[in-house]
Amino acid sequence: MLNFDYENRTRIIFGKGKQAMVGELIKPYGNKILFHYGGESIKKSGLYDEVRSALEAAGVSYVELGGVKPNPRLSLVREGIRICREEGIDFILAVGGGSVIDSAKAIALGVLYDGDIWDYFLTKKPAGKVLDLATILTLPATGSESSDSVVISQEETQLKMGYHSDKIRPVFSIMNPELYFTLPKNQIANGVCDMMSHILERYFTTTVKADVTDGLCESTLKAIMKNALILNRNHKDYDAWAEVAFAGTIAHNGLLGLGRAQDWACHKMEHELSAIYDVAHGAGLAVLTPSWMRYVYKTNINMFVQFAVNVMGVEGTYRDPDAIVNEGIDRLERFFITIGLPITLRELGMDDSNLELMAKKATWYSDGKETPVGGFQKLSWKDILEIYKMAQ
Amino acid sequence: MLNFDYENRTRIIFGKGKQAMVGELIKPYGNKILFHYGGESIKKSGLYDEVRSALEAAGVSYVELGGVKPNPRLSLVREGIRICREEGIDFILAVGGGSVIDSAKAIALGVLYDGDIWDYFLTKKPAGKVLDLATILTLPATGSESSDSVVISQEETQLKMGYHSDKIRPVFSIMNPELYFTLPKNQIANGVCDMMSHILERYFTTTVKADVTDGLCESTLKAIMKNALILNRNHKDYDAWAEVAFAGTIAHNGLLGLGRAQDWACHKMEHELSAIYDVAHGAGLAVLTPSWMRYVYKTNINMFVQFAVNVMGVEGTYRDPDAIVNEGIDRLERFFITIGLPITLRELGMDDSNLELMAKKATWYSDGKETPVGGFQKLSWKDILEIYKMAQ
Repeated sequence: MLNFDYENRTRIIFGKGKQAMVGELIKPYGNKILFHYGGESIKKSGLYDEVRSALEAAGVSYVELGGVKPNPRLSLVREGIRICREEGIDFILAVGGGSVIDSAKAIALGVLYDGDIWDYFLTKKPAGKVLDLATILTLPATGSESSDSVVISQEETQLKMGYHSDKIRPVFSIMNPELYFTLPKNQIANGVCDMMSHILERYFTTTVKADVTDGLCESTLKAIMKNALILNRNHKDYDAWAEVAFAGTIAHNGLLGLGRAQDWACHKMEHELSAIYDVAHGAGLAVLTPSWMRYVYKTNINMFVQFAVNVMGVEGTYRDPDAIVNEGIDRLERFFITIGLPITLRELGMDDSNLELMAKKATWYSDGKETPVGGFQKLSWKDILEIYKMAQ
Repeated sequence: MLNFDYENRTRIIFGKGKQAMVGELIKPYGNKILFHYGGESIKKSGLYDEVRSALEAAGVSYVELGGVKPNPRLSLVREGIRICREEGIDFILAVGGGSVIDSAKAIALGVLYDGDIWDYFLTKKPAGKVLDLATILTLPATGSESSDSVVISQEETQLKMGYHSDKIRPVFSIMNPELYFTLPKNQIANGVCDMMSHILERYFTTTVKADVTDGLCESTLKAIMKNALILNRNHKDYDAWAEVAFAGTIAHNGLLGLGRAQDWACHKMEHELSAIYDVAHGAGLAVLTPSWMRYVYKTNINMFVQFAVNVMGVEGTYRDPDAIVNEGIDRLERFFITIGLPITLRELGMDDSNLELMAKKATWYSDGKETPVGGFQKLSWKDILEIYKMAQ
């Protein structure tokens, strides 16, 4: 196990009807808040009105900023920062999925910063003073409700960049499985794939010994798959949603990667897809992950045998480890298909015209120089191009 | 899954040599601290000198209070509270195992409280303002380094009482596996049993569906047993210690019980043992847990089949679920024997003279009235007496 230093302040308030507490929960933190959200879905569902009532009942005044889109945009973040400064906002409430929460995190990071918010994403410099934020999660997927990370897209340059800081973990997040009953099937599937990927990126490691987190990763992956199949038949199963939503938080709150070298190649490769094609992050991951696995598994075949046996339930008594691994990857791919995910770039509507560009962008390739991607196996742009081609 | 509300502020700093950071880590919290510890072991190991140097280098002044004994005493807690008040102490550093940390938690709870500290344990009333505390863990076992709980013994009345509050979670805990190399074999085994019991008390539940935490519990139990056997052969195996120590924290930081009805009968029954006989908590749990399992398993035999198969590796294809369960419990008992734990009350030096007294104390039995114990199956004093007898 590697050394680690872990702290996660996010309070998780989990269960039916808990969104009604939001006003009282915010009171100790904020006098005037930014109520940040996406499109019309929270208005249709009634959540928008519930939140407004709760804030008003608690005497918390607020300014609204809706309009967050998937792959949240830098332009709206800048607008949010401007509003917060003009209105003297001291706290942000994000009501939505990962995009809304990430947009809120970036605004929280920028309000009290003298320079331009994009600096943080380009330089990865330590966060200064940050506004506190909280969330009501409406789409379990990204784990942003208790993670230290934020991903923002710059529209003009088609750059999608991440940033990490413990300071942008929400102070609390409210999770009510009933809020997820109305999600469309493709969003459920994308979310499931995103959270599985958060675990797989941590699981495949060069760290030789990490039994506890190996087991936490494996058992959480199995619980997600089991309950995703239940949701695939009945998207209003409270218990299945509770398991999937809770797993989504655990998948990305940092715990499952403690003391482990991590990978993150699939996320980097996928960010290039969604930056150019604006595809759903989870769908992109479903396409790339099996190909990545087939490309890299010989680097540490034992780790992939363990995955195939412990997670995908392949019988571990075969003679041939390659056969075990390939059966495990095939089963993962079949699981993705079952819940309605794409497994090829073509299904995402992509041809091969940008593969080399994306592979080079992923590694910052320029004048023969590049930054290899991935902790499990270092990938050059040529490796990534191969993986993109395998995923076509 | 049941509703839950979870927050855990404890920062975990994990790895070789991390105790050298303690002075700098405390600086933002405390000007004058209580340095609380047990006996001579930290002096022999050199840790005592290391801590003093680190505090002095950081300019943190301190008052020492050693002398914490296993099953930490109310009398020393009261002395600690008196010292903190007289000396104007604003932070407590516990350097030791669970007893030292629990003693520090009780002191932290009492310093700013007007009444007598024992009130909290008797009434369970909400904590008022509490001093911050931190720990350097020297014995992985109780999980107190990031738990919300404290257990203190009242010598005169032979009462051993617990208390819970998020306010007594340490602000940080330093865990260095190298500090555990010198622990004697029986303390390792007791610690392993204690952390396993923390998981088992959460695992056996009346909550029908809890896949994620089922899996977290099962995988953590397996990782503990695997690595405890390695330590049994080589008590200086860094990697095995890292796994066991990290698992001990996870076992009792609250995560594994989220959304689950919990049991805690074995802990309650064991507290009566150690209150009268001053036996090691882990040893008492090793004796009682298998008997408790045999006594209650028919309440939900499926849960125990799952335990036998998923944790103890019993083949799940037998015809007879009772046989599977009993094989699972037998394997757990054999594991305890292998690492040197007692499995009978006789081995703890106890005869049957206090069994009825302890069973009645466990349920507060008085004038025919009692408070049943345990969430998985409610146990009367007569049930508990049966379990004590089975464990003889």
